[in-house]
Amino acid sequence: MSLPTANLDPAFRITRASHVVLTVRDLAASRRFYSEVIGLVLTAEDGGTLYFRGVEEACHHSLVLRQGGEMSCARIGMRMFTDGDLEKAKAFFETQGCPAAWVDVPHQGRTLHVTDPVGTPLEFCATMPVMPRMITSFTHQKGGGALRLDHYQILTPDVRKACEFYMAAGFRLSEYIAPAGTFDLRGVFLQRKGNPHDIVFFNGAGPRLHHFAYLAPEVHHLLHACDVAGALGYGSGVERGPGRHGPGHAMFVYFRDPDGHRVELFNTHYQVMDIENEPVAWDPADHNVSFPWGLPARQAWYEEATPFAGVAIRDPHVKPNPPTLEKYLSRPKT
Amino acid sequence: MSLPTANLDPAFRITRASHVVLTVRDLAASRRFYSEVIGLVLTAEDGGTLYFRGVEEACHHSLVLRQGGEMSCARIGMRMFTDGDLEKAKAFFETQGCPAAWVDVPHQGRTLHVTDPVGTPLEFCATMPVMPRMITSFTHQKGGGALRLDHYQILTPDVRKACEFYMAAGFRLSEYIAPAGTFDLRGVFLQRKGNPHDIVFFNGAGPRLHHFAYLAPEVHHLLHACDVAGALGYGSGVERGPGRHGPGHAMFVYFRDPDGHRVELFNTHYQVMDIENEPVAWDPADHNVSFPWGLPARQAWYEEATPFAGVAIRDPHVKPNPPTLEKYLSRPKT
Amino acid sequence: MSLPTANLDPAFRITRASHVVLTVRDLAASRRFYSEVIGLVLTAEDGGTLYFRGVEEACHHSLVLRQGGEMSCARIGMRMFTDGDLEKAKAFFETQGCPAAWVDVPHQGRTLHVTDPVGTPLEFCATMPVMPRMITSFTHQKGGGALRLDHYQILTPDVRKACEFYMAAGFRLSEYIAPAGTFDLRGVFLQRKGNPHDIVFFNGAGPRLHHFAYLAPEVHHLLHACDVAGALGYGSGVERGPGRHGPGHAMFVYFRDPDGHRVELFNTHYQVMDIENEPVAWDPADHNVSFPWGLPARQAWYEEATPFAGVAIRDPHVKPNPPTLEKYLSRPKT
Amino acid sequence: MSLPTANLDPAFRITRASHVVLTVRDLAASRRFYSEVIGLVLTAEDGGTLYFRGVEEACHHSLVLRQGGEMSCARIGMRMFTDGDLEKAKAFFETQGCPAAWVDVPHQGRTLHVTDPVGTPLEFCATMPVMPRMITSFTHQKGGGALRLDHYQILTPDVRKACEFYMAAGFRLSEYIAPAGTFDLRGVFLQRKGNPHDIVFFNGAGPRLHHFAYLAPEVHHLLHACDVAGALGYGSGVERGPGRHGPGHAMFVYFRDPDGHRVELFNTHYQVMDIENEPVAWDPADHNVSFPWGLPARQAWYEEATPFAGVAIRDPHVKPNPPTLEKYLSRPKT
Repeated sequence: MSLPTANLDPAFRITRASHVVLTVRDLAASRRFYSEVIGLVLTAEDGGTLYFRGVEEACHHSLVLRQGGEMSCARIGMRMFTDGDLEKAKAFFETQGCPAAWVDVPHQGRTLHVTDPVGTPLEFCATMPVMPRMITSFTHQKGGGALRLDHYQILTPDVRKACEFYMAAGFRLSEYIAPAGTFDLRGVFLQRKGNPHDIVFFNGAGPRLHHFAYLAPEVHHLLHACDVAGALGYGSGVERGPGRHGPGHAMFVYFRDPDGHRVELFNTHYQVMDIENEPVAWDPADHNVSFPWGLPARQAWYEEATPFAGVAIRDPHVKPNPPTLEKYLSRPKT
Repeated sequence: MSLPTANLDPAFRITRASHVVLTVRDLAASRRFYSEVIGLVLTAEDGGTLYFRGVEEACHHSLVLRQGGEMSCARIGMRMFTDGDLEKAKAFFETQGCPAAWVDVPHQGRTLHVTDPVGTPLEFCATMPVMPRMITSFTHQKGGGALRLDHYQILTPDVRKACEFYMAAGFRLSEYIAPAGTFDLRGVFLQRKGNPHDIVFFNGAGPRLHHFAYLAPEVHHLLHACDVAGALGYGSGVERGPGRHGPGHAMFVYFRDPDGHRVELFNTHYQVMDIENEPVAWDPADHNVSFPWGLPARQAWYEEATPFAGVAIRDPHVKPNPPTLEKYLSRPKT
Repeated sequence: MSLPTANLDPAFRITRASHVVLTVRDLAASRRFYSEVIGLVLTAEDGGTLYFRGVEEACHHSLVLRQGGEMSCARIGMRMFTDGDLEKAKAFFETQGCPAAWVDVPHQGRTLHVTDPVGTPLEFCATMPVMPRMITSFTHQKGGGALRLDHYQILTPDVRKACEFYMAAGFRLSEYIAPAGTFDLRGVFLQRKGNPHDIVFFNGAGPRLHHFAYLAPEVHHLLHACDVAGALGYGSGVERGPGRHGPGHAMFVYFRDPDGHRVELFNTHYQVMDIENEPVAWDPADHNVSFPWGLPARQAWYEEATPFAGVAIRDPHVKPNPPTLEKYLSRPKT
Repeated sequence: MSLPTANLDPAFRITRASHVVLTVRDLAASRRFYSEVIGLVLTAEDGGTLYFRGVEEACHHSLVLRQGGEMSCARIGMRMFTDGDLEKAKAFFETQGCPAAWVDVPHQGRTLHVTDPVGTPLEFCATMPVMPRMITSFTHQKGGGALRLDHYQILTPDVRKACEFYMAAGFRLSEYIAPAGTFDLRGVFLQRKGNPHDIVFFNGAGPRLHHFAYLAPEVHHLLHACDVAGALGYGSGVERGPGRHGPGHAMFVYFRDPDGHRVELFNTHYQVMDIENEPVAWDPADHNVSFPWGLPARQAWYEEATPFAGVAIRDPHVKPNPPTLEKYLSRPKT
C-alpha cells in the first residue's frame, strides 16, 4: 500500500473551504456566542437563519445557523473558482458515483450539492454577494476577532477512501498520521488553498463534523475569546487549550458552542504550495505530535462530534485509541 | 472571629519578596531549565551553587540553587529597607517567639535568619551587590523572559496564625479565601510591595513551598516558555496552564523544574496601596475563582510541594477538598 | 555639585501619583477619547465634571475632566498613606515655604492643596470612595485598556530645585539626565511607589504638565489604542510612537487628546525598591537614550505642554536643545 | 480607459513570489542582519553566496545574497507549479516580446530567466531542494522570526503596462491606487497565491526594487526585530514604522539592511481568492490610505530603491508627489 496519487491537473478548480451550515436550538444564544466570543460579523438574518462572516471576509457568509430541533450539520461548503468549474465538477462527481444536484440556496450563486464517497454532504458554489471586509473596522471587532473560515475536520471510518477521492479532485495531502513505517492512514490533511488544510479526515465513528476552524489574528485574540467566554458564562465550553499543535505549530483553542458544535480558533498556518512538498508523516504513538507540552485533550474532544443531518453513522474498523487526558491522569506513576 | 488587624505603622520596613534558596540534584539540568525555559540570567557560579536573577533585576540573585542530595527549599528571602530595619525586626521576631539569628551569606549584606510561627524558614537582608539590569539587552533574553521574583505560596495547616504574624509585621491582606460569610481563612494573600502578594498561605500539609513566581512581560513570553520547554524535553513539566486566574486576572503557567520544584510565570498584577482597599473575599466553593474558563488544576498541583529542609510537615485540621481536574472529569454527566 | 540626598525616613508617607485634574473645552469629545481610545472607565458625571478611573483601579478617579474655557491643568494629585500622614506633611510643606491648605474636594477624603517650590499645584489625599476593579470585566474593556495612572512629567526651569524638594519629601531618584560626568540635572525621575517614576521633571519653560501616563497591559493594547484612534478620527493625535524608551525599556505611545493634553500609554516598568539601587545617569548627547531605533520625537513633543491654571510660565536658564525629528531629517547626509 | 482584464484561465500556473537575489558588499554584515534582526535561517553558504529561507519555508532559499561591488538586485524569483508550466510559460513570454532563456542555477530545478515588459529581471522555477521547516524549532528562532517571503514592490514608470502583462499571465488585481474616479493607475497590487499581493508596482523612477517583504507571526515579532536592530547597532535602519497599513490592515516595519536594501516585516494578510472579489480602488489623495494614524513615511522611503543590475532607470511620466513626513512637518499650522 502507498499514498494515493495527487492529481496536479484536475479538470475543475476547487479553491477553498468556505462555509458551514449548522442547525441550532436557540438562535439568540448562538448569535451571542458567535458574535461576542468568536467575533464573527452578522451579515443577515432571514427568518430562522443567521448568516455570519469572518472579520476579513468579503463573502456573504462562512457560517449559517438555522433554527432546528436537534443539533446537526446540514452541509459543509467549498468554493469552485468559476461557474464553469462547477459544471465540470458535476460530471466528475457523478463518474465517482457521488450524487450531485443543482440547488437554489439564498445568498449564493449557482450551487451544487454532492455527497462524497464517505457520506459527507458537500455544497459547492463559485460566488456569493460581496460584503465589506471589516478588517480595519477596529471598533467593531470582538472576542476572538475570527478572520476567516479555514478548514473542517471530519470523523470517518473510511479515511483512505476519503483521501483518494479528494486527491483525485485536486486536493493535495500535506500531512498524514499512520503507524510508523506504514501507509495505514488514520488521519489525512488535505488542501487546495495553499496552507496545510481545507479538510481533514480522522478515523472514527462517522461521518461526523469534528470541528470547523477560524483563523484568528494573534494569540492574544485566542486568549481574549476565552476571557469573554468566561465573562459571558461560556467558560465551561473552552474544551481544549489554549495549546500548541505539535506538528502544525499553530496555537489553538477549541470551544463547544451552546449546542455543542465544536469550533476552533487558531493562529498562523504555514504555506504549502510547491510541488516538492511531500506529505509529512506523523506517528500516532508519538505523544509530541498531539501535545509537545501541557495536557492531552480529554476523551470527549476525541469522541464527540456533530452528526450530519440524516446521515447514518458507521463505526470504524480500527477502534481509535487516542492518548486522552483521562488515561494520562490515571497512568501509573514512575 | 474577624480578620486580623493590619499594622499600618510597623517598627521596621519589609519591602518585598526577594529570593529563594533551593536544593537540586543536578545543577546542569537546573541551569538549563532556568536559563532557557524561565529565562533567568546567571549571575554567578560558586562551587556547587548557582545564583540567578531576573531580566530586570539589579540585585545579585533572586534564585539560589545548591547542589544537594534531596529536593528541598532551604529558605525564602525578603528584603528590609535598611540595615536599621533589620535590627528593629530582630527584636520584633524574638518578641513573637520566633528564633532570629545573624548569619553570613555570600553575595548579601547583613542577613537575619528567622523561623516564622508556622515553621517557614525566612532570610532577611537589606542589600545585595548591584548587577546590570538586562532589561534592554534584547539579544540575551530567552524563554519566558522572567523579569523579577514576585511572590511565594506556602502550604500550612496554620493559615490564620501565619496571617496574624505577617499582618503584625506590616503586611496587608489583599485577598482571602474563606467559606462564604465566614472568616475561616483557607487562603491569604499578603503584600508589602503594593501589588496583591509577596507571600500567600494556603491550607494544606506544611509548611511546604507550593511555588515561587516570576513576573513575565507579556502573555507571549508565557507561551514561548512553554514552547521552549517542549523543544528541550521539559514539556511534561508544564503542569498547569496557560490559563487565567479568576480573581487576580493574571495569565499564568506553572512549571515543575527538573527536581519538581514548582515555578510560576505570570503577567500583569494590579496595584494595591491605598488604605481604603479592604481585603477581597473569595468563596472556595465558587468555581469561577479557580477557573473562569478551561480546566481545573490537577490534584498534583494542589497536593505536591517542596519541603523545607529539616522542617517537619504537619497535616491540616480541615482536609483540603479542592476542585481537581480528576474530580471534574469523573463528575456525573448532566 | 552632587546629587541631592535621599531622605529614607521621611515623617510622612506619600505613596504614589494618583490623579490629574484637567480643564477641557468639550466634555463629550473628551469622554469619547478617554473611554474609547485610552480605555478608561467612567465612574461618575457631576454637572460639568467627568471622573474616570483605570481598568484595574479601585479608587474613584485618576482623571478628572472639568468643562472650562481654556485648556489647562488644575492640579496633579498624589496619595498619602493615612490621614495622619497628611497632617505631618502639611507641617513639612509649610516649613519648606510651600503654601498648604485643607480643601473640600468631591469624591475624595480629607484633601490638602500645596504648591511645590517650582510652582506645580499639588493635591494630596489619603482616601477615595472604593469602586469595583474592572480588571476581569473583559467585555467592558476598550481601546488601550489603561490599567492605572502611573506618573507625571513636568517641564520646569528649576529641575534641581524640584529634585531637592521631592527627595526631602521621601522620593527617591531612580534615573537622571545630565551632561556626561556632571550633576547638572536636566531631567530627574523620582519615585515613591517602587517603580522608576511617580513624577518626572525636565528642563523647559514651566511649570507645565508635559504628560501624564497610564500603564497598559501589553503592547497590543498600545497598538489597538492607535487603531481605534485612527478609526474614530483621532489618528493625527498619535503624536509619537509606538516606540521603545531607550533606558527605561518600556514600549510607549503618546497621544494628544482633543484639547491637546498629552497622555502616554506604556507597558511594563521595572521595580526599584532596594537601597543599593543608585540613580542611573543618562547623557543627553547619547541618542540611544531617546531612541534606540526608529525616529526621534518631533519638536512639538518636546516643546508643547499643558499650562497649570493661573501659574506663570518661566523660561529655563539653559535653553533645551533636544534631538528633534525635524533636525534629524534635515541633517547633512553622510 | 478601464482596468486590464483578468485572465482566469492562463496556460501556465505561476504560484507565488518565491525568492530574491541581491548583491551586497559585506557578506558577514548581511548575514548578521538577516539572521539576527529579520530572523531568517541560513541554508547554505557557497563561496561568495549566502542562501537564506524563512522559518517555515521548506524550500532551499527565499533570499540569495552575493558578494559584489555595488548594491543591486540581480533578479526576483517566482514559482511555477510544474516544469510543464515552465515550458508553456516560455512560449507565452516570447509571444509577449519578453526575452526568455533556460539557465542553470544552483539549488534550483529547471530555471527560466525572463525580463518583463517594464524591464524587471525575473527568474522562474518549479522546484528547489527540500529543507526542514524550522517552524517548531522554537529555540532557534530569532529577531523578527520571518516566516516566509510574501511579495515584492517595484517602482516603474510603466504601471499600467506592468499590470496588463501580469494580468495576462494569470495574476489578479486585488487593489489599485488611482486618482478618484479614474483608472489612471499609480499603484497596482497583483496576486497569484490568494492573498493581496505577490508583486506590487508603483509609479516612480524604475524599474527598481522598492522592497521585498517577509511575513512575521505576530506584532511582537516586529517589535522584537526593532529591539534587536537597536541592540546590534542597526537602529537607524528602522526606516518606517512600526505602523498600520491603512487599506491592507497589516502592521508593518521597514528596515534598510547594511547595504540599503529595504526589507519589510508585516503580519496577517487577508485572503483574496473568490471570483467576485473586484479590485479595490484607493485614492492617493486620501491620507488615511497611507497612514490612518501616526506619521507619514519620510521622503527617502518613497524615493530610494535598489537598482536592478545592468538595467537602465527611466523617469516616470507623472512625477510622484507623495505625502512625505518632511511635507507633513513643514505644513502651515492651522
